[in-house]
Amino acid sequence: MDLVSVEDVRGAAEDIAGVVLRTPLLRTSWDADLWLKPESLQPVGSFKLRGATHAVARLTAAERARGVVTHSSGNHGLALAYAARAADVPCRIVVPEGAPAAKVDRIRALGVEVVTVPPPRRVPEAERIVAETGAVLVPPFDDRRIIAGQGTIGLEIVEDLPDVDVVLVPVGGGGLSSGVATAVTALRPAATVIGVEPELAADTRDSLAARSVVVWGEDRTYRTTADGLRLPPSELTLAHLLARLDGIVTVSEEEIRAAMGRLVRDARLVVEPSAAVAVAARLFRRDELPAGRTVAVVTGGNVDPAVLASVLGR
Amino acid sequence: MDLVSVEDVRGAAEDIAGVVLRTPLLRTSWDADLWLKPESLQPVGSFKLRGATHAVARLTAAERARGVVTHSSGNHGLALAYAARAADVPCRIVVPEGAPAAKVDRIRALGVEVVTVPPPRRVPEAERIVAETGAVLVPPFDDRRIIAGQGTIGLEIVEDLPDVDVVLVPVGGGGLSSGVATAVTALRPAATVIGVEPELAADTRDSLAARSVVVWGEDRTYRTTADGLRLPPSELTLAHLLARLDGIVTVSEEEIRAAMGRLVRDARLVVEPSAAVAVAARLFRRDELPAGRTVAVVTGGNVDPAVLASVLGR
Repeated sequence: MDLVSVEDVRGAAEDIAGVVLRTPLLRTSWDADLWLKPESLQPVGSFKLRGATHAVARLTAAERARGVVTHSSGNHGLALAYAARAADVPCRIVVPEGAPAAKVDRIRALGVEVVTVPPPRRVPEAERIVAETGAVLVPPFDDRRIIAGQGTIGLEIVEDLPDVDVVLVPVGGGGLSSGVATAVTALRPAATVIGVEPELAADTRDSLAARSVVVWGEDRTYRTTADGLRLPPSELTLAHLLARLDGIVTVSEEEIRAAMGRLVRDARLVVEPSAAVAVAARLFRRDELPAGRTVAVVTGGNVDPAVLASVLGR
Repeated sequence: MDLVSVEDVRGAAEDIAGVVLRTPLLRTSWDADLWLKPESLQPVGSFKLRGATHAVARLTAAERARGVVTHSSGNHGLALAYAARAADVPCRIVVPEGAPAAKVDRIRALGVEVVTVPPPRRVPEAERIVAETGAVLVPPFDDRRIIAGQGTIGLEIVEDLPDVDVVLVPVGGGGLSSGVATAVTALRPAATVIGVEPELAADTRDSLAARSVVVWGEDRTYRTTADGLRLPPSELTLAHLLARLDGIVTVSEEEIRAAMGRLVRDARLVVEPSAAVAVAARLFRRDELPAGRTVAVVTGGNVDPAVLASVLGR
């Protein structure tokens, strides 16, 4: 399989400048060898803006006129809506009935078209729109443009901390981890890139062990609060991770909550549960990690206020 | 009175690089003409690190050996402890009995000497240490080195947004506002710098009107939750503000709380009440402000978790 290259990632970096925030590395007060990459500060509150902006930038003129579509009421849907609006490209977001009103309202506020369907109709409806209008489907992770876009995080980490030893990256569908591993292994071969999953959604750990996609299913993975990390990898992302990821560790729900509390109190970042897993690994699974100068990717901050309040006392 | 110059601020910028984070400007999702300068992301959680680092950098070799001292258990004390530690300079922080243990523990964790005294003994004890040991007193705002250090925020704002029209800056003792007004008025004369105070601690508004320092007293100003903004200006800071600030507006406690909620939910920043006043002015006192591309300085994020939890539902 033809993998995304570091040149693809460099190209993405040029494409996304001006829309995406170049996030700084933040030193932590509690660990002299730990830096945070706070993607929660992006305009839409997550790293997903990088891949979405890159995918939109790579449209041909004809495709731009027909617009883009995706089926996500979460961070990817919000990111694609923002990226399309910034580029003045028509955009439709298919959301399931029953999606949190706050999230749907934020997407609608960006001025894009929201199409509401029963949950099982999400993907078919997006495919119907593609067939009928010629719009370009931008999937959340199973896509070379998305992987290259998310990989710009790895590029910036090595630029800002050239002697980085370890990069810890949350793993959901694998777009982010594939991109970051691509950039970091190319630019800093001595560094180690480690994926982090919730114990309750360790499908990528199992997939790496089996060397083929293992699907846990939503009936199992819904149990983790880290809702951005419930999906299994695709063939494309697993191929990247098999070639370029140095290892994977898992963290418990209690560890995720404690890491969220630490990030809120001591790094003054509002984070969602999925965004805290890399810091949780450094806090609680240090014996499973290589030593040295470590960067944890903090992926997003779109958290339910009640969930945020629940970790403040910790 | 000889005021701090933009050259002083430029000198400070060179001195603090490497210790202080160069914070990015963050676009907001709710206001296309509003950017945030998130000083809450500094290693100690507030802009105070800029002035403290600059003051430490300007010590002579003899002064470095004797060390620094201040009387603050708040953000300035924490910042000076961090700056002194980073420069390997001895440091004593005089704190009042009864100061919050969490704050004192954070200062102590930096490895500096904490001297606990009854509240009225704070300043005399710091002066006694100066007389006895030759240590250099680094006050929180009534100091040219501190003003120049805080002014680096203005430098960075104009670098990152050269066509900025309005800068909104919280006003406590006036070190930050003096420095920012110094840099912005020199580098971008067309821009307007507006101070923001709590209605319950509007001593700088009154001082500007009277053209001399008006002290409200802690028996009045303790009522505001914005505990970083309770002090009146000094002769030195008032002279800077009279010469360089374009205006001042005040905000209510309810507006401060609403702005905190907005920053947590929609900018994903953990902020303290004092840090939210500039955003509160833009949200609720827009008719009192000039129009145009506006930057609000978000000064710090060291907030009591219970206070943070109380604004999450808004």
